[in-house]
Amino acid sequence: MLGLRTDTSARWLATVDRHLDEVLIDHAHCEKKAAGVALNLIFSYVERTDLVRALAEIVSEELEHFRQVLDLLERRGVRFRRLPPSNYGRQLHELARKLEPGRAVDRCLIAALIEARSCERFALLRDHLRDGGRDAELANFYGSLFESEARHYSTYVRFAEEFADSEVVRGRLAELAAAEAEIIARGDALPRMHS
Amino acid sequence: MLGLRTDTSARWLATVDRHLDEVLIDHAHCEKKAAGVALNLIFSYVERTDLVRALAEIVSEELEHFRQVLDLLERRGVRFRRLPPSNYGRQLHELARKLEPGRAVDRCLIAALIEARSCERFALLRDHLRDGGRDAELANFYGSLFESEARHYSTYVRFAEEFADSEVVRGRLAELAAAEAEIIARGDALPRMHS
Repeated sequence: MLGLRTDTSARWLATVDRHLDEVLIDHAHCEKKAAGVALNLIFSYVERTDLVRALAEIVSEELEHFRQVLDLLERRGVRFRRLPPSNYGRQLHELARKLEPGRAVDRCLIAALIEARSCERFALLRDHLRDGGRDAELANFYGSLFESEARHYSTYVRFAEEFADSEVVRGRLAELAAAEAEIIARGDALPRMHS
Repeated sequence: MLGLRTDTSARWLATVDRHLDEVLIDHAHCEKKAAGVALNLIFSYVERTDLVRALAEIVSEELEHFRQVLDLLERRGVRFRRLPPSNYGRQLHELARKLEPGRAVDRCLIAALIEARSCERFALLRDHLRDGGRDAELANFYGSLFESEARHYSTYVRFAEEFADSEVVRGRLAELAAAEAEIIARGDALPRMHS
C-alpha cells in the first residue's frame, strides 16, 4: 500500500485496544510534528515557491488535524500531555543523506513514508473500530483523515521529483521503504501510532 | 501605538521607496518566520491546549499571508529569493530570559512587539502608498494585513498573561518595548521591513 513494504501486524491493533487513550495522545503529537516537518522544508527550500505554497497548505492541514485530535481528547475527558515519542521518526530521519540534493529527496520521501504508514494505520483503525460498533465516532474520524494522508503521500513523492529524476526517486523510495519496514518490524516498547 | 515607544521615522519610508522589491521579499520571509515563532511556541507549551489552539490558527494565518506576498511578487515579476535578514528579530529574541516562566512571558511579549511594529509599519505603508495613488494595489494589501497584526499583538499579550500576573506582564512589556525602540532607533544597514 502506497509504497510500503509491510502491513501492520495484528499485535499493533491489540496494543491500541489496550492503550487507546495513550495512542490518541500520541496521534495529536504526530500531527504537530508533521506540521513541523513541512514548515522545516519551507525554511530549507524557500526559493522553490511552488513547493513552498503546497507545503504551507500541508502545515495548515496538519494543524487542523492536531486541533481535531485535541477536541476528540477533550470530548473523551482524556487529558492531553507530553509523551516520550516512539523511535520511529528519529530512526527514519537518521536515514536522510547529508548532502544536497540527496538530502532534499530523502527528507521528502521520509515524509511520504510517514504519511503512508499513517494512512495504512488510519484505514486499519477505521475498520477495526467500526467492527461491531466498537467506536463509531473514532472510526469515522480515522476514515476522514485517511484521504488527506494518502494525498500528502503523493504530494511528498512529487516534491522529491523536483530534486531528482523520477527513476532515481523511485529507486530511493524502495530503499527507504525497505528500511521503514525493518523499523516497523522491530517495533517499539511504547504504545504509539507508529510503534 | 500598541505598546510601542517610538514611531517609525520618515527615513524608513524613503528607504522603502528606493528598495520596494527588496522590502517586499523581506516581508515574505517575515511572514514565514512569524509562522515559525508560533509553531515553536506550540512545541514548547504544548500541554496548554487553549494557547496551542490559538497558536495553530496564527500559524495558518501567517502562512496565508506568506502565500499572499508570494502571489504579489509573482504578479509584479519580482523573483522571490533568500535575503540576509535584518538584525531586528535576533536582537529582540536575545532579550528573552532563560528560565521559565519568565522565558514564556518574554517569548510571547517579543512576538507581540514584532506584530505591533509590523502593524505600525503596515499602516504607514498603506497611507504612504495610497497617497497620490502611488500604488493602490499594495496600499490595499497592507490595509488588509493591518487588522490581523493588531489582533495578533493582543493575542500574544494575552498569552503572556497565562504565565504571569497581568501587572507583571505590563511591566515587562514596557521594558521590552523600550529595548525595541532602541533597536529601531539604531536602525539597520539593509532595507528591510524591520530595519
